[in-house]
Amino acid sequence: MKAKTKNISIVLYKPKYAGNVGSVARAAKNMGIENIIVVGAADMDTEEMRKRSTHLAVDVVNKIQYFERIDEALGSFNYIVGTTSRLGKARGPFISPRAIAEQVVNISRKNKVALLFGPEDTGLSNDELRYCHAVVTIPTSRDLKSINLSHAVIILCYEIFAASITASEEGIPKLALSKETEGMYGQIKTLLADIGFLNPENPDYWMMHLRHLFNRAGLLSREVKIIRGICRQLEWYAHHKKT
Amino acid sequence: MKAKTKNISIVLYKPKYAGNVGSVARAAKNMGIENIIVVGAADMDTEEMRKRSTHLAVDVVNKIQYFERIDEALGSFNYIVGTTSRLGKARGPFISPRAIAEQVVNISRKNKVALLFGPEDTGLSNDELRYCHAVVTIPTSRDLKSINLSHAVIILCYEIFAASITASEEGIPKLALSKETEGMYGQIKTLLADIGFLNPENPDYWMMHLRHLFNRAGLLSREVKIIRGICRQLEWYAHHKKT
Repeated sequence: MKAKTKNISIVLYKPKYAGNVGSVARAAKNMGIENIIVVGAADMDTEEMRKRSTHLAVDVVNKIQYFERIDEALGSFNYIVGTTSRLGKARGPFISPRAIAEQVVNISRKNKVALLFGPEDTGLSNDELRYCHAVVTIPTSRDLKSINLSHAVIILCYEIFAASITASEEGIPKLALSKETEGMYGQIKTLLADIGFLNPENPDYWMMHLRHLFNRAGLLSREVKIIRGICRQLEWYAHHKKT
Repeated sequence: MKAKTKNISIVLYKPKYAGNVGSVARAAKNMGIENIIVVGAADMDTEEMRKRSTHLAVDVVNKIQYFERIDEALGSFNYIVGTTSRLGKARGPFISPRAIAEQVVNISRKNKVALLFGPEDTGLSNDELRYCHAVVTIPTSRDLKSINLSHAVIILCYEIFAASITASEEGIPKLALSKETEGMYGQIKTLLADIGFLNPENPDYWMMHLRHLFNRAGLLSREVKIIRGICRQLEWYAHHKKT
């Protein structure tokens, strides 16, 4: 069975243990995913990584890409899936691995998809989840919710692999890049601050609602351009009236 | 989520690495399975096991049952599921983790079920598979078929746990009424006309793009209110600046 998973990458944000990164490399390769990015942890023990990946997946470890900052790491992806076990109103909506798998398989035919995992102890914070178009929660027993990093990776990758075996070809839209949408959010935020719509104490509150809405839709490049055009016109209009 | 998995046990036949047994304990507990049996490996390093299980699953490690012989270990089970990545005519028929999961959940309501895993390097031989009522194969990429022991365990247990959760009542969102969204579109159109964004010859051209975008997302009532609030503030701002 050969999956079409070359457009899918695992992005590990600030992992703490090199051994876990090695285990992740093997798990991902088992499920046909060979691109791994490590963010904010450039000084890891690569020998330990190679040991735990076993010689079977050492090639995946050797081509890991390292980034300092998360926005740099995610900038060239079109669709970003976060993972969390911490539920909270502002963090959702949460999707099961099975539900996201089919979506990821379809979207990844024409788009670059990142599967984003947080540090072993704390997971992803709201700062990182902001970048995500969807947030996955792996169902667990109440008695032990904390899943080992490589275990979480292999469950999500397994679901995607299983979905890729049966998936059918359909019209898959080409989504906007993360750097395009982030630029748009920055412009909207500036505009809404200018007109006094955002609460200066918590400017991200309304922005989060807009992000959820746009993420559900899956923004296309030309839609980002339209929205930015509207914002530009509004800014010009506001400025013009002032002078 | 509480699974009914007390009748299910993990049976590890001649595992080689204590660390893997510890990882299996944590993985199984994540998925609501807390009975682990180790066969033919009584002299394992239990300290290493505890370390890898983390303190969160050390209770599972502490109550591991040890047997010398496989027939003794399996004697009190009603249904035994073997696992293998080595396919062969005499070894099958092979079932997917998803297909076996539903069966295991049903059977385990009134029967003791063992999930049997072989040694890390060789897996189960035909001698052990003889005991099995069904044999599961986890689908993998051709490029790397060999799965880490705890990874194989968590995939099978995850499928069983997912099957054990009764049809989830995943919140179906309550969408905005047509009269709410139409009111919003009217307001946006007026605003965009005011600021000179819409072509007077064909004012609906850009509106159509916005409708497509919002329809894809499926607008909620509160999101309509947020967008109308932004429009109102923009109108007020524009008007205020004029006078």
